[in-house]
Amino acid sequence: MSVFETERKIQFQHCDPAGIVFYPRYFELMNSVVEDWFETVVGISFAEIHGPRGAAVPAVHIDVDFFAASRLGDRLTFALSVERLGDASATLKITARAGDEHRLAARLIIAHVDAAVSGATPFPDDLRAAVDRFAQGI
Amino acid sequence: MSVFETERKIQFQHCDPAGIVFYPRYFELMNSVVEDWFETVVGISFAEIHGPRGAAVPAVHIDVDFFAASRLGDRLTFALSVERLGDASATLKITARAGDEHRLAARLIIAHVDAAVSGATPFPDDLRAAVDRFAQGI
Amino acid sequence: MSVFETERKIQFQHCDPAGIVFYPRYFELMNSVVEDWFETVVGISFAEIHGPRGAAVPAVHIDVDFFAASRLGDRLTFALSVERLGDASATLKITARAGDEHRLAARLIIAHVDAAVSGATPFPDDLRAAVDRFAQGI
Amino acid sequence: MSVFETERKIQFQHCDPAGIVFYPRYFELMNSVVEDWFETVVGISFAEIHGPRGAAVPAVHIDVDFFAASRLGDRLTFALSVERLGDASATLKITARAGDEHRLAARLIIAHVDAAVSGATPFPDDLRAAVDRFAQGI
Repeated sequence: MSVFETERKIQFQHCDPAGIVFYPRYFELMNSVVEDWFETVVGISFAEIHGPRGAAVPAVHIDVDFFAASRLGDRLTFALSVERLGDASATLKITARAGDEHRLAARLIIAHVDAAVSGATPFPDDLRAAVDRFAQGI
Repeated sequence: MSVFETERKIQFQHCDPAGIVFYPRYFELMNSVVEDWFETVVGISFAEIHGPRGAAVPAVHIDVDFFAASRLGDRLTFALSVERLGDASATLKITARAGDEHRLAARLIIAHVDAAVSGATPFPDDLRAAVDRFAQGI
Repeated sequence: MSVFETERKIQFQHCDPAGIVFYPRYFELMNSVVEDWFETVVGISFAEIHGPRGAAVPAVHIDVDFFAASRLGDRLTFALSVERLGDASATLKITARAGDEHRLAARLIIAHVDAAVSGATPFPDDLRAAVDRFAQGI
Repeated sequence: MSVFETERKIQFQHCDPAGIVFYPRYFELMNSVVEDWFETVVGISFAEIHGPRGAAVPAVHIDVDFFAASRLGDRLTFALSVERLGDASATLKITARAGDEHRLAARLIIAHVDAAVSGATPFPDDLRAAVDRFAQGI
């Protein structure tokens, strides 16, 4: 199983009056990680998916546990792995830690939808193959 | 069991290039609903909690299922109920629908923390009593 | 000259670690005001403009002075008027105050673009007529 | 005169239903650039300013011209220079371009405020000296 890691710095825009990350911002950060993974690992960018391909990969389920607060200036290491690859959906596991301290663990299920078709539609072959190679650590 | 309902219109700022609500914006909307509930039902505003009381109610767990996409101009009815009221945490259930169509169902666990103390601390009596009255539908 | 007024409450999502509105959130609030004005006064919603009409009204210029900070729980009255209505652009003046205290004054120039055409294109007649009626206070 | 340059990729979270950057997100991006400049060039991070120093540097004026739209996947080069350094405020000039195409030019005036004092207060000596060295290109 492969793991994709990328770092994000907690900036002013992520923090709330309590001085910690406002949780909706964590989802922006997670989506940014998924986006980077699509572009650099899967090899198909969000611009390609939403543009020429006329498709989208919306979230259909999310669960997340927040273990500890993150503060302005923290450097978080996000790690993404593929827990399950279905016909028209994929379950991604995303964690974030600052050094050795676990900050969150999330499960994000994304579906594949084709703008020209109603409901979820199977992943195209190239996208599926690339995700599968990553999932299997090939 | 009481239910707190409030309406939110899907605006431009909530929507993504696919023309639907970008899921991190749903969490802003949900937090806004929780905030209104605190102010109007519990009777203790976020300004009061984060200001004079020096406390906070961060999310420690969230799970959410998205059933159908929401689009620009949709009017969503959010419904909030209390599933469990613990010593220092509460489980809120939040759903959103547009007319009869269910859009999402979420479970949000918030903890009570006191800035002057490390870790979760019991809810103050007035806050607990107000949440309890609502939860019991009194 | 007409003025469109609408109220916005400063919520948690708008505030930064200094406990005041983070200025990018002011632009979300202003855009929300413009959006409400389009829907309720001009009579053509953003959903209509960006959907069936295949158009958009992006900002091409903004200048804003922030006179005083806004805090969590503040209720701001936003006022919008039309300073100039051109062929393919309009200059909107937007102010916000809390009670008698002025918080900001902004000038926002929006252009009209048609997705099928490159560059700014003249406002459609119905939209122009409606904005003109408002601008002239008819 | 020195110029601080840094790159930002336009991600999904920045884009609106028209498929272009929603202008409030540009201000998040600009603030992120200012934040990086403070940390890496001025040598005093936002975490330091808002934390131990109990201060803040809110925006008091912004004007910006948007020359062309930015799209998902665009890589923008932001450039920041100091136009004026006053006692308690500084005028920053920020531009963004994608390759040779100018996307925006902004002027941002930030003030220095001390949480313990009402209104703007002079920049502390170390902060002023560092900004001055940068402004003079020393």
